[in-house]
Amino acid sequence: MKVYNTSFTLSTDERTEISDITKLVRDAVQQFAVTTGIALVNTLHTTCALFVNEYQAALVEDLTRLVERLVPERGGYRHDDPRYSDCERGNAHSHLRAALLGRSIAVGINDGDLVLGRFQSIIFAEMDGPRKREVTVQVLGE
Amino acid sequence: MKVYNTSFTLSTDERTEISDITKLVRDAVQQFAVTTGIALVNTLHTTCALFVNEYQAALVEDLTRLVERLVPERGGYRHDDPRYSDCERGNAHSHLRAALLGRSIAVGINDGDLVLGRFQSIIFAEMDGPRKREVTVQVLGE
Amino acid sequence: MKVYNTSFTLSTDERTEISDITKLVRDAVQQFAVTTGIALVNTLHTTCALFVNEYQAALVEDLTRLVERLVPERGGYRHDDPRYSDCERGNAHSHLRAALLGRSIAVGINDGDLVLGRFQSIIFAEMDGPRKREVTVQVLGE
Repeated sequence: MKVYNTSFTLSTDERTEISDITKLVRDAVQQFAVTTGIALVNTLHTTCALFVNEYQAALVEDLTRLVERLVPERGGYRHDDPRYSDCERGNAHSHLRAALLGRSIAVGINDGDLVLGRFQSIIFAEMDGPRKREVTVQVLGE
Repeated sequence: MKVYNTSFTLSTDERTEISDITKLVRDAVQQFAVTTGIALVNTLHTTCALFVNEYQAALVEDLTRLVERLVPERGGYRHDDPRYSDCERGNAHSHLRAALLGRSIAVGINDGDLVLGRFQSIIFAEMDGPRKREVTVQVLGE
Repeated sequence: MKVYNTSFTLSTDERTEISDITKLVRDAVQQFAVTTGIALVNTLHTTCALFVNEYQAALVEDLTRLVERLVPERGGYRHDDPRYSDCERGNAHSHLRAALLGRSIAVGINDGDLVLGRFQSIIFAEMDGPRKREVTVQVLGE
């Protein structure tokens, strides 16, 4: 069994932007010609999320509204208050939303492809864009 | 070190149904006689969840109520609205609840058994049953 | 490729206590001289959480308040009711908060170090302290 490291970047245009990155992850994995194994996919950031769900436009909007409701943008956060933080982006809500959704996934590899169900996509959720984001992919397999 | 793939199916009887699948995962892992390694356990679906916590009847009910409170079944979701979605199951809440709880876990293997604490169980949460569900298990180890 | 197992313990002093354990995880990983691979970090408990985010004092307070708001300590939980549970700690909220935040992370290893972004820390959140906690680390790599 071998281990491989790679990464790719994403440029986001909006403050909140949810995209399907399944193809980007598949391409990153398949360059290594691994038949069986696992892929670990991580963002290197703290204000965006990475998870698996169905990628359907209406559902993506529902998810956006859910995190807006659970973690409102203006919530009187200390991280947004210059008395307690030197972060000037006002992005406490982005950190907190990312904490709820997760920033890492592991997916199996079988027959040289990602093991995903019919409705499963790998989804990247920008919560504090526009930004340039880096996603790392570790592949372990043979 | 070697990598092994297997899977098992679950049949759920209720709309929401939380079950302890630790034994199913342990049996799936132990057929490979791996002494040390990791097991990656994934559902192939987007409206059920997989996580580790204590499996105790009252707590399971508390968890069910929590996700019902955070993500009510009737929330005016677009994914449930025929103008925006051709999904006829009315299951936006199932997707959103699954997104909060996660659908994948990784567990260590040591001395040929899963590395779980005294109160830890691997828990499967059906959020859109009754259905037949598939759970995949990747084992990496030696 | 090889697989290694280790663990470390944490002692927490407060009921809720969030700490940066990046250095503890890095030290645990680096004893194995693995150049490339992954590290799987798990708590063996069900009332604490483990995740990756920015470790900044004000943000940590915001996160504490968020989980207190989403999962209040006194929520009429069945797990805290002697009619339904023999757990006498009154810690249903701790279990439920842990379920929202997660109790396991996987991090890449490259050039002999953890693959973490500039603002990423590995964060341990005690939700039911003071307690002695065990964190396991599995390293797969070469």
